[in-house]
Order: sequence, then structure tokens, then C-alpha cells
Amino acid sequence: MIATFTDFGAAGPYLGQVRAVLYREAPGVPVVDVFPDLPAFNIRAAAYLLPAYSQYLPPGCVCLCVVDPGVGGEREALAVAADGRWYVGPDNGLLSLVVRRASRVSAYAISWRPAQLSDSFHGRDLFAPVCARLALDGMTPGTPVALAALVMPDWPEDLHEVVYVDGYGNAITGLRATSLPATARLQIGGRVCSRHRTFEEAPPGTPFWYANANGLVEIAVAGGSASAALNTVVGEPFTVMHSS
Amino acid sequence: MIATFTDFGAAGPYLGQVRAVLYREAPGVPVVDVFPDLPAFNIRAAAYLLPAYSQYLPPGCVCLCVVDPGVGGEREALAVAADGRWYVGPDNGLLSLVVRRASRVSAYAISWRPAQLSDSFHGRDLFAPVCARLALDGMTPGTPVALAALVMPDWPEDLHEVVYVDGYGNAITGLRATSLPATARLQIGGRVCSRHRTFEEAPPGTPFWYANANGLVEIAVAGGSASAALNTVVGEPFTVMHSS
Amino acid sequence: MIATFTDFGAAGPYLGQVRAVLYREAPGVPVVDVFPDLPAFNIRAAAYLLPAYSQYLPPGCVCLCVVDPGVGGEREALAVAADGRWYVGPDNGLLSLVVRRASRVSAYAISWRPAQLSDSFHGRDLFAPVCARLALDGMTPGTPVALAALVMPDWPEDLHEVVYVDGYGNAITGLRATSLPATARLQIGGRVCSRHRTFEEAPPGTPFWYANANGLVEIAVAGGSASAALNTVVGEPFTVMHSS
Repeated sequence: MIATFTDFGAAGPYLGQVRAVLYREAPGVPVVDVFPDLPAFNIRAAAYLLPAYSQYLPPGCVCLCVVDPGVGGEREALAVAADGRWYVGPDNGLLSLVVRRASRVSAYAISWRPAQLSDSFHGRDLFAPVCARLALDGMTPGTPVALAALVMPDWPEDLHEVVYVDGYGNAITGLRATSLPATARLQIGGRVCSRHRTFEEAPPGTPFWYANANGLVEIAVAGGSASAALNTVVGEPFTVMHSS
Repeated sequence: MIATFTDFGAAGPYLGQVRAVLYREAPGVPVVDVFPDLPAFNIRAAAYLLPAYSQYLPPGCVCLCVVDPGVGGEREALAVAADGRWYVGPDNGLLSLVVRRASRVSAYAISWRPAQLSDSFHGRDLFAPVCARLALDGMTPGTPVALAALVMPDWPEDLHEVVYVDGYGNAITGLRATSLPATARLQIGGRVCSRHRTFEEAPPGTPFWYANANGLVEIAVAGGSASAALNTVVGEPFTVMHSS
Repeated sequence: MIATFTDFGAAGPYLGQVRAVLYREAPGVPVVDVFPDLPAFNIRAAAYLLPAYSQYLPPGCVCLCVVDPGVGGEREALAVAADGRWYVGPDNGLLSLVVRRASRVSAYAISWRPAQLSDSFHGRDLFAPVCARLALDGMTPGTPVALAALVMPDWPEDLHEVVYVDGYGNAITGLRATSLPATARLQIGGRVCSRHRTFEEAPPGTPFWYANANGLVEIAVAGGSASAALNTVVGEPFTVMHSS
């Protein structure tokens, strides 16, 4: 299976062109757009989403990962093997949290190049054909890369920021729920949010946090929009208040 | 075939995770996202859309139906066999109009549970694997449920409200066109709308109603947005004026 | 392969119904939504996008093309064979630039009609089944049509207007990059844009133009939104300033 994680958006002409290449180069391999609207240009936010939203994909899955504002510049193209899956994308930090959190991981600089490579759409011209070849098991991805070079040392282990606001208005954060005791509260947008296990349990209209289905701390309002209630967007920081 | 009807939105990380599960559990079964953006949290509006927008799907089709603001609470999971198709979703009224309008119908409380069930994403963890099993014909869905328990007695046969506004600004209603004589007019947002058969026939700029391609009364403006012209959103009521 | 080019939007119940028909009528043929959100009702803008965004699709690909505000009226249904691909859609000008730019081209008025044809959704009821039959090679599309009748004589060879704004805010134009010297500048929204080869090269925050990955002139802002910076929407004209 090939899974796409991009900031292309569900609309527009980008995902479809990528899928046309994948069908041409790897006919019969299923393709799923797992995250079509990672925050545009926001490599760091996307980096914290990737391990959480790829963890339930099947072994052998090849993840096409594109948040690439520097496309056309000098960065390498990477293929990272992490815990039985492949991740393919630019060497700009996007894969750094995948590398950090994996138990078994190796990385390669992709040496393959297509006959025609556009300056602005490496997702279609380079990363998609590489994913197709990896999915068909017909490629040695390239030269090994030292893992230390892929980790962004200034980025924290958990990111105390909103990294995505979904269609319901829920604010997904870069903080893993396992890093937070259930009694902790979050201060964000002038409000304090306690934990509830489910939307059912939460009082309607009151922002709360919960461990979402992908293991991240998510701020929500039952039957409403946390983003609107807290006036929150991607990048908004929050603080953790531990109970005394 | 598996068809999805959800309020997840076309963007975001939810439909893709569901599709990844469907591919894993029912490889080779085609999946189509028929309605990816049912009105969020709005079980009743979605319930009136379901029979209209599933009626042309092929026999044997399994419909994954998720509008589930009470996820994690006590409601049952249902599998409804209606006129040769399966409908799988929460027991919260979402399937009540499917049940009412079908000629041959039976319903089951799903007893199967996955090894891991998140508190907030039963679409991925419970409903999708059940749909996969039904599509592969490898499952007895569970215990029969009395149909009377599934029908919301307070919900009308036709809903005189806007239930969806599409990307063009057309306002789809919960009223079946067969319930309305062609001479009837609709009063909504301070305007009166007459019927025209096609967009071609309608005077540009004037809101009109027509029988849409799925049998529902839809309010539109030729070459424009009815939603903007009438300042209409989901939930807006209208009245029917019968000609005398 | 079947590729869809429509103004239905990525959300909503239209693309899914089309795909359900395609799966029923041509099981096993891959379907890719290449452009799900062509500018609504805007036949001319879409016509200039079609040849650019279909040029890299594989030989034999069947393109379902629907921007059809006059649906239900008198226009013909067309099947155009152009440079080894099929294009199927209404005879309203949508395919006129495909016809003009192809080296080998022939066109047919589709005589086939479905048993049931709605007044408002020919994409589902007529064009999709025709595409399925063409993809399976089981159809003679109909009566030959003179190509001259399909070309809109008042439409220019290149359109000096914005024809699409993508999710990043980039403004795609109807002007082919090969029609413009690299030294040319564009005047739009009170600003003057020079060319840069890549986003990397462009100074952050300054609108520039570049030859996009589909051969069209596109106006962008590195790390930002050209649409916001220039207050530009689809239909906005620009002028070309040639260096002296």
C-alpha cells in the first residue's frame, strides 16, 4: 500500500497527478490519501503529525510525505525505513520525528532521478515514482545517511502547540497523550481545559482535552468547535498545568 | 463495493484512515466516498440524505454511515439490510429514514468488537472492519433488532428544512420531490421559489426549486449561489405554498 | 485509466456518485480525480486548464470533463480523441482548447443515451457511462463532428487571466510559459512580477511568476499566498510587459 501525507489539499490538481503517476508506475498497488491537508508550508507541525497518523498503517506501507516549501532548492531526497514502513520525502526536517520515534530505522539519500524533473513538483516527478518502486520492491533507494543528520536538534520531543485544526474545529496538538498525566490541565487561549475520556462525557460547550485515536492530545468542544471557542489556529502554543 | 457516508470532511486525516482499514480487511473491494461531508454532528439532516444518495448504488453495496457525535457513549452499533444493501453505523437515528423507506428491511445489533477500540473513532476501529466483513460475506452481523426501535417517531416523513448546501451554493432539502406537486411554491428566506425543470429553463439570478438527480427538492440559482441569495444554511426551514 | 476533471468540488455527493457508476460500468479500471474543483460554472477558465493538466496522463486515458452550467439544455455530448487520449464532456466550449492544441484530433457527437437520464446530472448519467465504455474499448462514440464547430473563435490562443487559485494561494493563469520570454514581467493587481525559476530563488513575500510544472505561467509568493498579496481571484486579467 502507498499512503500519501501532503499539504496539497484535498481539492486542486496535485493529489490527482501524483495518483496518476502511482497508478502508472505501480499498477494494482492501492493508494490511500491519509493526510491530504497537512498545514501548508509548515514542516515542523507536519513532522509531529506523521508518526501519529502513520502508526496504524500496515507493515510494508510506503508513505509519500510532501511538505516542501523549498522545492527546487538544494535539499536531498530521502527514503527512511522505520519500523517496517517506508517514508519518502524531502530532507527538510519533515521526517525527523519519524526517525526519532522509530525503534528500527535506517535512512538513504535517493540517487534515482527521473528523465524529466520539474522545478516545483517533486512530489509528482521524483517522490511518487520512488514510492512506486519501493512498493514494488524493485529499488535500492540509494546511499545510507547518518541518522543524526536527520534529527532537528532544536525541536522538542513533544511540541506544545496546535499542529492541525480539523473540520469539526478540533485542535490536534504535537503532544503525545502518553506524555501527559490524566489529571493535567492545559492553558490555551485564556482558557483552562481538563481531560475527559470521550465527547459523551464532556459538558457541552466547554473546551476539554482528550487522548485522540492516534495518541495525540486534542482539544475539543462536544458538539462544537474548539478552534472557534478558543480562537485557535495552527501554531498556537499552550502550557501544561500539573495538578499539585 | 463499499460506499462511505460520513461527516469527516474530504480533507483531514479521517477518511484516509478508514480507507486504509478497508483495504487491509477487504483487499480488492472497491471503496467510494459517496458523501464525505454530511453536515457535521447533524444526525437528523444526514438521516434524510442517506436514502436519497444511496438509492443508485449497486445491489450488495455496503454503506459505511458515520455521523456520530456521541461516539464513546452507550449506543449500539447497527447493521441494517435494506432493499439489498447493507448500512452500518451508530444507533442514533442516522439510519432511521433508511429503515422507514425500505421495502425489505432487517436490522442487527453488531456483536463483533475489535481487539483495540478507541474512544473517539469507531468509524475506523469498529464500523470499517464490520463493513469489510459484510462486503466479503464473512460475517453474521449480530442479534436481530426490532425495527420499531430504530425509527425516530418524532421525525416527519419529509423534512421541510435545508439539509445540505453544496459547493455551488445549491440548498438540498429533506423533502422528496414526489411529495410535492410541480405547481407548488416554496417560501424560504423571505423569497418565494417556483419550480423549473432545469437550470437552463430558470431565469438567471432567481431562486427556484427543482427535483434533483437524487429525488430531493433542491433550491438553486442558475449560474449563482442559492445559499448566498437566500442567506440560507443547513437547518433553515421553509414552507410549501400549494396553488389554489 | 479514467481521469476526472470537474467543477463538482472534492467534497459533496457528486464525485462519489460518478465513481460508483464508473466502478459498476468499468470494474477494475483505475479512476483518478485529477481536477475536482475546476472553477464553478466557468467553462472558459476550465478550457485553458484542461490541456495543461491532462498532458502527462498516460496514452489511452479517458478524461471525464464536466463544467456544465447548461445541463438539461440542448447542447450535444462530445467525445474527442486527441493525441491518444479521450475527452468526454458537453459541447459548450470546455473541450475547445484541447481540440486546438492537439496534433491528432477527431471528435464525435455521442449518440448513446442511458435508460434513465436526469435533468441535472449528466456527469453521472451520461458522461460517466460513456467514459466507462471508451475505457473498455467497447463503444463507437457516435457521429463525427467538424472540428471547426468546436473551437471558440473569440477565445484567444493564450488567456491572460487567472484561471485557478490553488490551496496555497498560487494564481494559475491561462498563459503557456512557452509563450512568454523569461525576461517578461507581468502587471497584475497593481504589482509587477518578475520571473524566478523556483520558490527557493524568489525573495520571500514578493509576488513572482514562474513556469509551473504543467507548463502554465503561475504567480506565487514564496511561503505565502499570491492570491492574498495581490487580492486576486479567478478571472483577474494581467498584462505582459516585455523588456525593451
